[in-house]
Amino acid sequence: MISKEEISDKYQELQRAICLSLENEDGVARFKEDRWERPEGGGGISRIIEDGKLIEKGGVNFSSVYGATPDKIKQSFGYDATEFYATGLSIVLHPNNPFVPIIHMNIRYFEMNDGNWWFGGGIDLTPHYIDRSDASFFHSSLKEVCDQHHESFYIRFKKWADDYFFIKHRKETRGIGGIFFDRLNRDGGKDALFNFSLDVGKSFIPMYTKISRKNKAVPFTEKERKWQLIRRGRYAEFNLVLDRGTKFGLETNGRIESILMSLPPLASWKYNHSPEKNSPEYETIKLLRKDIDWINMH
Amino acid sequence: MISKEEISDKYQELQRAICLSLENEDGVARFKEDRWERPEGGGGISRIIEDGKLIEKGGVNFSSVYGATPDKIKQSFGYDATEFYATGLSIVLHPNNPFVPIIHMNIRYFEMNDGNWWFGGGIDLTPHYIDRSDASFFHSSLKEVCDQHHESFYIRFKKWADDYFFIKHRKETRGIGGIFFDRLNRDGGKDALFNFSLDVGKSFIPMYTKISRKNKAVPFTEKERKWQLIRRGRYAEFNLVLDRGTKFGLETNGRIESILMSLPPLASWKYNHSPEKNSPEYETIKLLRKDIDWINMH
Repeated sequence: MISKEEISDKYQELQRAICLSLENEDGVARFKEDRWERPEGGGGISRIIEDGKLIEKGGVNFSSVYGATPDKIKQSFGYDATEFYATGLSIVLHPNNPFVPIIHMNIRYFEMNDGNWWFGGGIDLTPHYIDRSDASFFHSSLKEVCDQHHESFYIRFKKWADDYFFIKHRKETRGIGGIFFDRLNRDGGKDALFNFSLDVGKSFIPMYTKISRKNKAVPFTEKERKWQLIRRGRYAEFNLVLDRGTKFGLETNGRIESILMSLPPLASWKYNHSPEKNSPEYETIKLLRKDIDWINMH
Repeated sequence: MISKEEISDKYQELQRAICLSLENEDGVARFKEDRWERPEGGGGISRIIEDGKLIEKGGVNFSSVYGATPDKIKQSFGYDATEFYATGLSIVLHPNNPFVPIIHMNIRYFEMNDGNWWFGGGIDLTPHYIDRSDASFFHSSLKEVCDQHHESFYIRFKKWADDYFFIKHRKETRGIGGIFFDRLNRDGGKDALFNFSLDVGKSFIPMYTKISRKNKAVPFTEKERKWQLIRRGRYAEFNLVLDRGTKFGLETNGRIESILMSLPPLASWKYNHSPEKNSPEYETIKLLRKDIDWINMH
């Protein structure tokens, strides 16, 4: 059975591979690297790219932390084990072009010294203009990854993403969803679930490369840029008000700059903004809801 | 003894007076007005100004809501009364010029049908470049208003503001504080506390007029604009992660656009931004802490 150190090594390897690919795709900007230590045990490698040609701001963060279980973790998970170990890889990319979606990917593994362990993670896409063929491609790709591991995964984790990435106070989803899973500890055992999490992580580059290449050179105007900034405001609202990982990080004195790398380089809030009826922005808003069958919608 | 309707009327009168003064000061933009109703009882008048000469975005919101006490209110306040009444006036202004501070003012009255009632509110200032004489003037003015009502008010409510407007995860205050008070129901009785809250509200215009007139024509560069956007990001963090009023509004299905009018028109997040040593931005950061005696610091 795979050990926590091996899981962590594989996630870190994937971080390197993803950063290389993204630098290639961007063509201009390079990742900056910050290595940080957690005083109570472990640490991480934050890799940030800013002011690129494709990517306005993005982070690809690896961490592996351990030690005495903080009370907040005991409360959150309802376990009383004295020692914990957590490792994960987290990505958020804010592209320049409003026609390229924001993307988020995360895979993580958690273990306690009483024998409890689980995997979590997911990928979700936040387009500001929904291209139905991109949406279908994105969800089909996720389904393909899921189907290789369990026939129930895509349908379960797609629904989970719909429910999780929902901005309650706006009554809209963050984007077109994707997959989300947490506390997985059955479904074939540790090795199988690790392989699933790694396959999710590995699917990130080919999927995002295809979608960003298709859209990154589409010309845009000030109007579309403004819409992007408003939608990024909603992204910030989700992350600061609702995202469990962010809240958990802020409450447990995590490394702030790594946690908040997900926030947009520039965002805007207009009072009571609502797009003109039948405009492309309006069509997007109409699709920001749960339970859409993206694969078969076009 | 003053009735809840009279309190509400006076707050609404003050809303009109403040909006008139602000339009005068701005010289270009006008307030838009939205009247909204709360399905369960009461409603409000949101007045928003955008793209002005002085004010990039601002809201002056009045509300008066009542009805069966929502469970969330019962839990928050630990009262079990079946009916509640709440009225208040809330202001946030985001000026264009980075040398003019963001200002926030709020006064509110809450009453339940078991006889419990209280006042809350405050004013606080968020400069991006701290001008010590402005800071001293601001705090002296607040002390003057407080001293007219109770000799302990300024010192108590100044400390309360320091503690409340503290961005825990950044270990910095939102700005230079001001005064904050909540659940006031002794200190001279209802009429006296109402008069105090109204005096706080009335002090807003002369104070902000003086500070904004002094700074609104100061020339600024792209560098100072960028710094303003970063500091506005911190403002958004405070409001979305920590502000009790915002959280309460989001959780109780309040009118979203009125609650979130406090968010900046444009904000930015740079990874790990830290100003150059001894720069004006650096000097500002150094002063974003609690327990500074602003009145006597210059």
